[in-house]
Formats: sequence, structure tokens, C-alpha cells
Amino acid sequence: MLPLGGLGEIGKNMTVVEYDGKIVVIDAGVRFPTAEQVGIDLVLPDFSYLKDRAQDIEAIVITHGHEDHLGALPYVIKQLGGARRAPKIYGRPLTMAMGRSKLDEHRLREVELTDVQPGSEINLGTFKIELIHATHSIPDACNVAVTCGAGTMLFTGDYKFDQTPVDGPPADFLRLARFGKEGLLMLLGDSTNVDRPGWSPSESLVGPALYDVFARQRGRIIVTSFASNLHRVQQVIDAAVELNRKVCMLGRSMRKNTNIAKALGILDIPEGVLVQPRDLEHLPDHRVVVMSTGSQGEPLAALRRMAFRDHPQIRIHDGDTVVFSATPIPGNERAVNETIDKLYQAGANVITHKDAPIHASGHGYQEEMKMMLNLTKPKYVMPLHGDYQRLQLHKRLAVSVGVKEDNVFCAENGLPVEIDARGARFGKPVPSGVMYVDGTDIGAPADAALRDRRSLSADGLFVVVATIGDDDGKTVAEPELIFRGVPFKDEADALLEALRDQVDASVERAAADDIHDLDEIQRILHDDVAQLVWEKLKRRPMVLPVVVAV
Amino acid sequence: MLPLGGLGEIGKNMTVVEYDGKIVVIDAGVRFPTAEQVGIDLVLPDFSYLKDRAQDIEAIVITHGHEDHLGALPYVIKQLGGARRAPKIYGRPLTMAMGRSKLDEHRLREVELTDVQPGSEINLGTFKIELIHATHSIPDACNVAVTCGAGTMLFTGDYKFDQTPVDGPPADFLRLARFGKEGLLMLLGDSTNVDRPGWSPSESLVGPALYDVFARQRGRIIVTSFASNLHRVQQVIDAAVELNRKVCMLGRSMRKNTNIAKALGILDIPEGVLVQPRDLEHLPDHRVVVMSTGSQGEPLAALRRMAFRDHPQIRIHDGDTVVFSATPIPGNERAVNETIDKLYQAGANVITHKDAPIHASGHGYQEEMKMMLNLTKPKYVMPLHGDYQRLQLHKRLAVSVGVKEDNVFCAENGLPVEIDARGARFGKPVPSGVMYVDGTDIGAPADAALRDRRSLSADGLFVVVATIGDDDGKTVAEPELIFRGVPFKDEADALLEALRDQVDASVERAAADDIHDLDEIQRILHDDVAQLVWEKLKRRPMVLPVVVAV
Repeated sequence: MLPLGGLGEIGKNMTVVEYDGKIVVIDAGVRFPTAEQVGIDLVLPDFSYLKDRAQDIEAIVITHGHEDHLGALPYVIKQLGGARRAPKIYGRPLTMAMGRSKLDEHRLREVELTDVQPGSEINLGTFKIELIHATHSIPDACNVAVTCGAGTMLFTGDYKFDQTPVDGPPADFLRLARFGKEGLLMLLGDSTNVDRPGWSPSESLVGPALYDVFARQRGRIIVTSFASNLHRVQQVIDAAVELNRKVCMLGRSMRKNTNIAKALGILDIPEGVLVQPRDLEHLPDHRVVVMSTGSQGEPLAALRRMAFRDHPQIRIHDGDTVVFSATPIPGNERAVNETIDKLYQAGANVITHKDAPIHASGHGYQEEMKMMLNLTKPKYVMPLHGDYQRLQLHKRLAVSVGVKEDNVFCAENGLPVEIDARGARFGKPVPSGVMYVDGTDIGAPADAALRDRRSLSADGLFVVVATIGDDDGKTVAEPELIFRGVPFKDEADALLEALRDQVDASVERAAADDIHDLDEIQRILHDDVAQLVWEKLKRRPMVLPVVVAV
Repeated sequence: MLPLGGLGEIGKNMTVVEYDGKIVVIDAGVRFPTAEQVGIDLVLPDFSYLKDRAQDIEAIVITHGHEDHLGALPYVIKQLGGARRAPKIYGRPLTMAMGRSKLDEHRLREVELTDVQPGSEINLGTFKIELIHATHSIPDACNVAVTCGAGTMLFTGDYKFDQTPVDGPPADFLRLARFGKEGLLMLLGDSTNVDRPGWSPSESLVGPALYDVFARQRGRIIVTSFASNLHRVQQVIDAAVELNRKVCMLGRSMRKNTNIAKALGILDIPEGVLVQPRDLEHLPDHRVVVMSTGSQGEPLAALRRMAFRDHPQIRIHDGDTVVFSATPIPGNERAVNETIDKLYQAGANVITHKDAPIHASGHGYQEEMKMMLNLTKPKYVMPLHGDYQRLQLHKRLAVSVGVKEDNVFCAENGLPVEIDARGARFGKPVPSGVMYVDGTDIGAPADAALRDRRSLSADGLFVVVATIGDDDGKTVAEPELIFRGVPFKDEADALLEALRDQVDASVERAAADDIHDLDEIQRILHDDVAQLVWEKLKRRPMVLPVVVAV
């Protein structure tokens, strides 16, 4: 059992199961970069452990369609040898449809994705796989049971025990309890909400709350939530229909997910309810619900653009009400607050989960985690999907319901747990951490590129070009100086003059000292210029010396 | 009444009162930069309106000693003509002592700071100033009443109505009510917690909660809170003394504020309680309380360094308990969470306000704001200290207690409200916004420097140096190429080769076209290289072309 990746979280995006030389991978997700990861597009788990093992991978199983469980799939497949050599991918129909859409965008059309229904068993040879229906904030979520010669491991994936889900049945309590009866070797459980006591509220409570909020509005209603939360989308549509409003989907992922879900029969939208953005101007405000991306304050999302009066089709005006049917993911608070404030400034009223119960988490709380442990009665427990704090808290919960303390393994990414007849223990760590997707490149975070960018962004740069004669090492042209990102306004001319003098002096000194190696002269130039800049500006920009010999 | 500055907040850091050509300035505070403001040290209100008016300023009055009300003082004084020409500064003793310490650091020793006791009146000629005792999360806070020919304006500053403050009396209800009786022209009120219903909890409730948490610990206790919250520091010391633990102050601002407060008799610390970091190794863990900076996850603060195992004196070990007696300021959540998680990883247990009531806000909630309005019965209201959303909510509160809607002015920074016998109205906007402190410079945020840094940090840079003959314009040396912050690993050699060829080709084309102007050749080089880089890397780094003619 080898958790890989997750930014500050353990085993969130990918976990590896290995037995008898064969491998099953559970999930292949991405994270979004933090503000410090300048210029980075996506953060992947470092799955280099798998790179030489591509031929041993019997399957990649995806628990559900969220980005942090599915989004790395194209990159994993490319790195493991491309579409033709890709392992088989398994998951429930919505998950596979979302995966297909993602692979198509990366021109990986040949990869085989296999729809699996909960309850049916996939026999891979070394491993048997079973998906168990679970409830989460996206349809078609599942727990994944992996059985091999050592026993059965159950990956919960993301889950809550919603007793009144918006669609389909509650979790498969019977199947989970049968693991408890038959003997479960290890439970690998979601720790996201382990700091919240009690039970999470049902998604079904959100619909009536949305209806109540909608019913009080006389103007346009703009709702934002996660585009993949199709239960939420359904409940927004239901409330709109009941109040005789049309619904307009805004934002690429909102439209894409709605289309996929409609095609699979997951969304039930009466004829004539959906309208296009261009239709909105012909509708009175009280007939309009706009459902938009941007609940996390994402810079390019439709809602953010509306807030900053930069949306091509929708301009916020007095009387609009914006409903945030989502909570900010930690780290996004500032962007969300900024969006809300701009919406107020543009004349809208804003309603959030603080004003009405219009959001429910997709992750179970403490009592649900205890329920999972009590149902499945695992011998070993490996808390996953959380930072160190949450894994520790999950461990306490497991111990509180009777799991032996020594049988709970709070692992780290790259730290495997090995199980055999004698027991379980931590193995030797393997390379792990994260990789960055940066434009079209995938690379390691220790990359000099990122360090350089941080340095450039902090203090800017000076480029110094000295042209010297090949023969005598003396300058043959005026030194060139370029600076970027260094504010020094008033003193600029005097400083540049001083720097030119310094370049001449440094070159002369090198010539006098009989130094002809260009690298060595560049080193001298660098040190002298950096020193002078520090003296004059009290600032340490990057100094790039270039010495050209002609 | 002219609110200036505050990053996303209105009138938080500085407000200007003008009458008959004379000026009083209330507060001079700073903000801390967001992650997008790369390389910026501090954010100041843009007070350029005051620059030509320095001789008209009768006083700068500081409501309390927090950075966002006091921290810009040295910069304001420097920009207004230096220490000798500085206006008089007024405030309560702790505020003035903290201001003095700040001015000393900037070598502005000659500035006159005047201690004012609440109740006494400062007669400036055009203006009369009175400070009214208020309760907040720092001692010596006050409301400020400014009286001129037009009437009296009351600036609440930051306040809560704490019925059981840790030191001193509650707010001066009688004085506030007398404004209501005698007629208050305008109330300018703190809006920070206007989204919280009810009353804020008293600071005095925090002490017993801290004691309860401390009493359960067997190992070391490390408490972090705002260094300026001396009530909190006192309560931590009291709990430590009661439990027979010594206290070690860690972090520059914690030590500085403690020293100032001890000198003023604000902190009551029994002899022998305070110990130095070097003494800790001789004390058993159960005798130690460390009081540390870093409650906001600040990168250089003592707690952060402990969490990252980088503190010279204290190494976190199993059995340590870290108590966060503070909540994250919006935007700091990620840094705080990261610190907490690293502390867990290092073996500590962490207790936050979610586990026990060990923090109380210094800003009043809705009922306290209503109380302020009902006591002072202002004719006009100007909500301050909040984003657009909060000002609007504050307006609703004011209307709900009977203030006329047209008499509430939700201003913007730089948008004055003018009052005369005929009434009140918005005036013409003046320059406003923010200025940046960047090393030793103060500048406007539109500075090209900052734009360049953002661009550099997003995509890195290429420097291209071509050396051409003065006579024929042909290259006389191999082109030099330097790149920073551009990851392209595998293809690097081939790309550099292609770029060198491109530089040669571009220079040749320019020579063939009889182009000799160096700027023009550089423009051609820039466009050709940028185009090639985009084709090869799908990335747009900054391209800096240098053409040297010899």
C-alpha cells in the first residue's frame, strides 16, 4: 500500500497496491498550485515509482470524477508510455465519461475506459476489484475493494453517509458490513472532515434552502457552485422550475458537465428550461437563474469576470442576487472574499452558506468515519486524504472504536506499508512528492526554473553586457545595462552611470590581472555589480553578466 | 471627511477631516501585501492629497497602536517633509510609546508625540480633539471626537463593548451618550464584524479557557497570539503563574511590546516568571510556557521556524502543545494551516479556537454597533473599516436603528463627504488608492517594476546578445543566450542551437534591409526570438535583446 502525492495531503491523488509483482493504482488526481508556485499550471503526484513498472500495472481504478482523483489521468498515461501502452482504466459510468472527455482533450482517444457497475467483480488475475456504491458530492462515487492473496483492502475514496441522497440509494451498508463479517485486511479511509464532530448534513437539505432563498428574490439570481456537483445543479434547476425561472449555464466546465450528465440521464431538465446567454436580455429579471462557475474565486471563471465587469454577456446590476452554494477551499478565502466584495460594489446582494444552509459538504464527519470503521471492522487502518494533523485525528477515531493503535498506519507520501502473514509495517520509502505541469512540460519542483522565477519576482534583474577585445581584454564598446522589475526611479541615471563605470573598472582589473577566461570575468562582473547595486539600492536583484569577446 | 487607503477596505488606515482650510488626520496605518504583490514589503494608503497640505495639518491623532492604524506614521512623516516639519502627533500613552519605538527605528527621533488622557480636550484652534476611552484587543484604545465649526464628528476607531475588560473600565458609555444628547454631526464607525450577529465575547472569558487548556498539559506549552494583544499576554502569564510555569517570550515584536508595556505598568509580571530561551533547557517541560509570534503563519516568525525545525533555540518534540490564541486573518488561512500541520508532523499537539474558546475578537458584533449608534445618535453615519460588503451591511444596521437612509454615506477611499448647513453630500474624488513600500522605495502600484516582476515570475526570461560590426552590421561574435526561469530541460541544446541560428538570421536580414538603428534591430530580434520560443515551448518568457555594435 503506497500513497503517492497530494500537495500537503497524503494519498489524496493516487495510491498504489502491489502484490506478487503486480500493481493496481487507485485514482490519478491533480492539485491546483498555491500562490508560491509561480507560473505553475497543475501539481501532479510524483509517480516516478510507476515509470519502470508500466507493464506490471493491471488496472487504474478511479473512485469518482473530481479533479483531485481523475485529473492526472492524461499525464499518467503519457508518462507511462502513451495511449497504446496504457493500462485498463475502470470506474463508474459518469467517472469514465468525464475521463473520456479529459483524454480526448489530450488526444488520447485510444485509451480503453471500462464502465463498471457496483456489485459486479472485475477479475484481473492477481487482483479482484469490486466497486461499492457510495454517496459524495458527485454522482457515481464508489468505494473500491481490492482483493489479493493477502486479503482485501477497502479504499473508501471520498464519501459521506447521506441517508437521503438526491439521487439513487444511500451507501451500500450491507456490502460494507459484510466486509466486517468476512474480515477486512485494511481500510484506507478519507480523513477530510475528521475535525468536524457529528454527522454531515444531507445534500437533500440544500434544495429546500435554495428554494427559500430563490423565492425571496425579485431580480436575477446567479448561483455558483462546483460544476461537478450535479446533485446541486439538479436542485438549482428544480427550484428554478418551481419558481418559473429559466436557467442559463455559464462557464466551460458547467456546460461540459451538464452535457455529459444529460447524456447519461443523470440530470433531469424539463424541455425549455435551459436558455442561452443571448436569450437573457429578452427575459425579465425575475424569470432568470444563471448557474455559473467561479465559486472559488478562480481568476478566469465566469463569476469572477462578472464581478470585475469583464464578462462579455452578463453585467451585474442593482437587484441581482448572487448565491454562493459552496464554501471556499482553504487557501481560496481571499479570492472568494474579493469576488464577493466586487459583486457588492457592482450592486448585487450576495448570499453565502453563512446566511442560509445552501451548502453541504461531500465528506463525512467524525461519526460517519466511526460508522465506516464499525461497519467494515478492518484489522489495519491507513488514514488517507488529509494533512498530518487529520491523519493523526483519524487515528484517534480509529482507536476510539477499538482498532489497535499499532495497527493504524499514518503514512507519508512515498512511504509504503507492507503486510504479510507476520503482520504489517512501514517499508522503505520510494521517490515521491509532487511534479509540476508548466505549460507543456512536466518537471520536478526543485527545478532551478522555479527558484529563478521566485527570485526574479522578488527583486527583479539586471543584465550587464561587456564587450571586450579578444586580444587585450579591454572593453571595445560601451557596456550595456538593462534592468527589469527593479524600481529605482529618481536615481536611475546616476546609478546606471556608476554601474557603467563599475563594469569598465571590473573589466580593466581582470585584464590587468591577466584573467582571460570569460566565465571568470563574468563571475567578477557579477560580484562587483551585485555589490554596487546592494550599496546603492539595498536590494538584491538577479545580476546576469554577459561578456562578449570580439 | 475623506477616507484614504486600506487595501480592499475603506478608511481603515487613514481618514482626513478638513475645515476652514485646516486638517486633522485620524490614524496612519499600513497593510501587509498579498501574494500577488510580489516583492512588496508594505502597503500604504496613498496620501498624496496631504503632500501639498503639510503646513495645514494641525494634528495626526492615532486611535490605537495596531499596525493598520499606526504603522505608516514614519512614512507619512518622511513624505510630508521629515521630522522637523512633522505635525504634532497625539494619542494615549501606549500608542505613543509604540509610535516612538517605530519612529526611532526610522531615525525620526525629533518628532513630537503627545500623550493624551481620555477626557481632557486638545484645543488646536480650528479643531478641538477629545479622546474617549474604548475597549479593544490592545490597551489604550480610544474613540476620537473632532469638533469644528460644523459640529462634532466621532471616529470610533476599532472597538468592542467589553463589559468585563481585562484591565481598566468598560467603554465610557456616559460620554458616548452625551454626544447623543448634545447632538453628534457624524459617526464614523468600525465595520469589521458587521457580519456577525449578537455580541462579541469578552476578553475576560479567554483567561479561564486558557487556564483549563494549560492545566491539562504535562509537556511544554507554546502559545501564539498577536504580540500587541497585551491583555492576552497578561492572561497567559497569569495562567502560567497559577500553574507554576515559567514564561519565555519569543519573537522580536513579542519581546518589544512586552518591554514597552512593562515600562508603562500595563503588564503585571511577578519577579522571576520571565525566563530567557537559554534557560529553557534547564527547566522540565511541565514548567515551561513559551509565548511566541507567528499566529498568522508569518514566514519569519518564531513559531513558523519552530514548525519547520529551523529555530535556533527551540526544537518541537513529542509532548509539546501549541495553543493558537488567535484566528487567521482572511488570506492567512493557508499559511496558518501549513504551520499547524508541520507542528503535528514535528510531534506537537495543536489546540485552536475550534477546540476551546481561547480567542475573542477585538471588534464588536452587530448589537455593539447598534449600541454605538443608539448611544451617540448621529445625524450622519459613515461606515468605515470594511470592504464594500461590510459598509453596505453597516448601512443596513444604521437604518434599522432609525438613521435616515440618505444620511448614511458608504464612501470609497478618496471620495470625500462634504457637510454644510444645507446638508451632506459626496464631493469630488481626490487621488487615492495605495502606495507600496519596496525596500527603501515608496511608489505607486502601477509601477512597471511590479508588472515586470509578475511577468518574470510567470514565464521567466531569455536574454539574447548579438554583437555586430559597426560598419557592415554583420555579427562579429557568436550570439550569447541566457535563460532563467524557463524550464525546457530535454530540448535545451537543440533549442539554443535554433535560437543562435535565428539571431544570426535576424541580424543578417536587418543588415540586408539596410537597418542600422540599434533599437530597430533589437525590436526585430525580440520579435523573431519570441516567436521561435513560442513555437518551440508554447510559452512567452520575457525576451531581452541586446545588440552591441563594435
